[in-house]
Amino acid sequence: MATLGLGCVRLCTGLMGRRAAPSVRSLRYLCGMTVSQIDEEVAKLLQLKAQLGGDDGKHTFVLKTAKGTRDYNPKQMAIREKVFNTIISCFKRHGAETIDTPVFELKETLTGKYGEDSKLIYDLKDQGGELLSLRYDLTVPFARYLAMNKITNIKRYHIAKVYRRDNPAMTRGRYREFYQCDFDIAGQYDPMIPDAECLKIVYEILSELDLGDFHIKVNDRRILDGMFAVCGVPDEKFRTICSTVDKLDKMPWEDVKNEMVKEKGLSEEVADQIGEYVSMQGGMNLAEKLLQDPKLSQNKQACAGLTDMKQLFSFLQLFQVTDKVVFDLSLARGLDYYTGVIYEAVLCQTLQAPTPAPAEQNGAVSGDEGGVSVGSVAGGGRYDGLVGMFDPKGRKVPCVGVSIGIERIFSIMEQKAELSAEKVRTTETQVLVASAQKNLLEERLKLTAELWNEGIKAEVLYKKNPKLLTQLQHCEETGIPLVAILGEQELKEGVVKLRNVATREEVDVSRAELVEEIKKRTSDS
Amino acid sequence: MATLGLGCVRLCTGLMGRRAAPSVRSLRYLCGMTVSQIDEEVAKLLQLKAQLGGDDGKHTFVLKTAKGTRDYNPKQMAIREKVFNTIISCFKRHGAETIDTPVFELKETLTGKYGEDSKLIYDLKDQGGELLSLRYDLTVPFARYLAMNKITNIKRYHIAKVYRRDNPAMTRGRYREFYQCDFDIAGQYDPMIPDAECLKIVYEILSELDLGDFHIKVNDRRILDGMFAVCGVPDEKFRTICSTVDKLDKMPWEDVKNEMVKEKGLSEEVADQIGEYVSMQGGMNLAEKLLQDPKLSQNKQACAGLTDMKQLFSFLQLFQVTDKVVFDLSLARGLDYYTGVIYEAVLCQTLQAPTPAPAEQNGAVSGDEGGVSVGSVAGGGRYDGLVGMFDPKGRKVPCVGVSIGIERIFSIMEQKAELSAEKVRTTETQVLVASAQKNLLEERLKLTAELWNEGIKAEVLYKKNPKLLTQLQHCEETGIPLVAILGEQELKEGVVKLRNVATREEVDVSRAELVEEIKKRTSDS
Repeated sequence: MATLGLGCVRLCTGLMGRRAAPSVRSLRYLCGMTVSQIDEEVAKLLQLKAQLGGDDGKHTFVLKTAKGTRDYNPKQMAIREKVFNTIISCFKRHGAETIDTPVFELKETLTGKYGEDSKLIYDLKDQGGELLSLRYDLTVPFARYLAMNKITNIKRYHIAKVYRRDNPAMTRGRYREFYQCDFDIAGQYDPMIPDAECLKIVYEILSELDLGDFHIKVNDRRILDGMFAVCGVPDEKFRTICSTVDKLDKMPWEDVKNEMVKEKGLSEEVADQIGEYVSMQGGMNLAEKLLQDPKLSQNKQACAGLTDMKQLFSFLQLFQVTDKVVFDLSLARGLDYYTGVIYEAVLCQTLQAPTPAPAEQNGAVSGDEGGVSVGSVAGGGRYDGLVGMFDPKGRKVPCVGVSIGIERIFSIMEQKAELSAEKVRTTETQVLVASAQKNLLEERLKLTAELWNEGIKAEVLYKKNPKLLTQLQHCEETGIPLVAILGEQELKEGVVKLRNVATREEVDVSRAELVEEIKKRTSDS
Repeated sequence: MATLGLGCVRLCTGLMGRRAAPSVRSLRYLCGMTVSQIDEEVAKLLQLKAQLGGDDGKHTFVLKTAKGTRDYNPKQMAIREKVFNTIISCFKRHGAETIDTPVFELKETLTGKYGEDSKLIYDLKDQGGELLSLRYDLTVPFARYLAMNKITNIKRYHIAKVYRRDNPAMTRGRYREFYQCDFDIAGQYDPMIPDAECLKIVYEILSELDLGDFHIKVNDRRILDGMFAVCGVPDEKFRTICSTVDKLDKMPWEDVKNEMVKEKGLSEEVADQIGEYVSMQGGMNLAEKLLQDPKLSQNKQACAGLTDMKQLFSFLQLFQVTDKVVFDLSLARGLDYYTGVIYEAVLCQTLQAPTPAPAEQNGAVSGDEGGVSVGSVAGGGRYDGLVGMFDPKGRKVPCVGVSIGIERIFSIMEQKAELSAEKVRTTETQVLVASAQKNLLEERLKLTAELWNEGIKAEVLYKKNPKLLTQLQHCEETGIPLVAILGEQELKEGVVKLRNVATREEVDVSRAELVEEIKKRTSDS
């Protein structure tokens, strides 16, 4: 921590009472710190204070999760499980295996892979061993895995959390710990076939999750580089101008142009030429048109990219997904490692007020029309050089993949669940073993164990003599559909009273037939 | 890093050539470092060297995962998925919900919960925000979650990775990053009912995973404390003597006694009295016997523990699991937070040569007979004070839970899979779309997409004109049971040749009936 920072926070905390926030804010300009920096410093000091025992001599904890992270409660987990099942089913339908890698890598493994974003990597403290960092994505660990195990072809998925010390915006689904669902195809294959499958997968998943309309932007790093070359951008500025173009989905063209000219030193003319290209959107036709473009057609890189783009669209037609795919020259993507096709899927609806999906929209997708964009929910591309960076002899393994960003999808699904009348169940319990009479705990436990042993999902309240009402309420609260009620009479007759919680109907079922009856009644739930 | 350490390693690396290991070892006594410390320093320096560009000007990477961690390849993942499914099914059968918490917590959340083990916690580097640590287990985050959300009763499971900077022994399934599968019941209930369910769960899971014979040791912290009191151990030494007793599963009694007397300052007589108690094993009878013990019966704590132990065994009888449960007074468990019943499950087989499970062993389990112990695979107990440590007003939420340690179970399952003749499939692909003729790529892709759209798990090779043999070999290698073969003739007739890979039988199936036919043939796979 910088001395200035500490000094400032000392000043701030000195002034802090129960409602200290306004004082802290009014001081921030004095210190030159942002509100977010102050919040972090305050949290840190409160931690230290708590460790020292707090002011009343008792341990006072800051009862929170780390900044930018959250817990998932059971309801959120039920939704998460549903989303994951849809995604995993799709990955398996496409024949993918799965792997897992550690949550941290040697720091050096991540170095030089993420360009400007490297500053967002979480490092572990040097506790006297190797220097480690939390993974920033699943792609670099995948490339490290391929190189380390000398694997030259594989189709794998990997679903796991990644870590970025970014400024969180949790209401918009942006966290410092978040899931990525990655599908990648590594291997030397004929052009654009695996690339087209990745886009088909995005199309399938976003359709099945029923999140409303979406579109998938496609471009190619070679087309971008060719475009920069013919517009007169110096070679060494390709990557940085690429980063600026990438901001077009958040900033108007005027601001982007401004950055190119004033910050990155391009001439107005060069910037305007880029501006003409990056406003172009279309499909196969656009690729054909640009192959005739007097300038672009002179650039080898651009021609290779455009020829592949045509090929890609022909496969996408076979896969019947062209209604959602746009060839968009403004798509750039931030990461350094892409070498060919790149893509990004965007939902066409607001997060705050989800609208139902338009019934059937089979026409071409045109820009952001038809809804306000909530930002990208999937992205990826081809990275033919990354594995070679890890291989001692530089052997390349061509790769293409896609990463589904789950947090925004969760946010939308959560909102949908809240608006929906249907209650989200967080358990799968089929039956509660209950009693209306006292002193039947042992009989309840015995029957419950019998049901468990037969594979029935059963619960029993952990009380000696619970009231029947309490037991029925537990069923209604958690959605348990059946109650198996035991009483002296039922025990004598060797039966159980099976009650349907919703209809309140009760029938006597013999102990021998109970399991079958429960299975029958809950088979479609 | 200590100055001495760095100086030493500088010396070592100065002498290092390609085969430097022997030189490093011969120097270690000079520096007073252990081999393991040196290994870590060397790895660190090699990383730094690689970052600086290496000696030949090219980037030379240390291509490895962090110490004590590993990747899971697709085969290992298939086994892991199977184990998780068994465990999750059991947790769901018992009506549990699930939650998730972030991989790191505020450092302070973990402080003071793990006793001597706290030194094994991974800290994150202070990058100018909160002080964070990787979670050490799932129990403390669970307690933090309950207090933070003011939850007073819940039955939840949580399966996630935890992190310990321990000395790894990876061949024995001991890692620095490993999975825990936790099931916990929080809430104020009648005595021993949730506790008994936790033991039932361990019994069900270890039986279903079919790992051979096992037994579950049970004890109670109150019995241990009462025993220490009546033997004359001073109050302030209870926890440290408890840690020493905990070593009885790894050390003979003589060494444990030695530690008590020479290191912890007990008298020989006191140690011998403890020795008598901790050699006792049994079931409900032992609890009854000890309730009559002239000394123990005078201690309130011990009596409460023994009465509960009797109650526990009566519930375990109803659950029919007493054949594997032993009341063992030597069981102590390391963690600070336990307050009542504690337990630990141990497999009775060696890791190197798994023996088949004994047909039916219904008698009482006596010690480690019947096999060499591979150590604990599950453990847990009651911790009624932990949530209160997080609550600002100290409100307690009684909790009991169990944690299944998965890595040793994986090791055993992996060995079983290797010994077994059956091949582990890593994909679920039902059919490969193939062709014997050239120029049918587009037709193959079209059919594949049709199958995907119908929910069939299908693959196609990413080559324009693959050889039929290559396509069939891919099926044999990956276990795909069916091939759908397209040719000019088939296209003309509107059929597909469906080939059974194992039997080599081929039949023509009309395109309209293909999906149904594939589903029918693969319904039980």
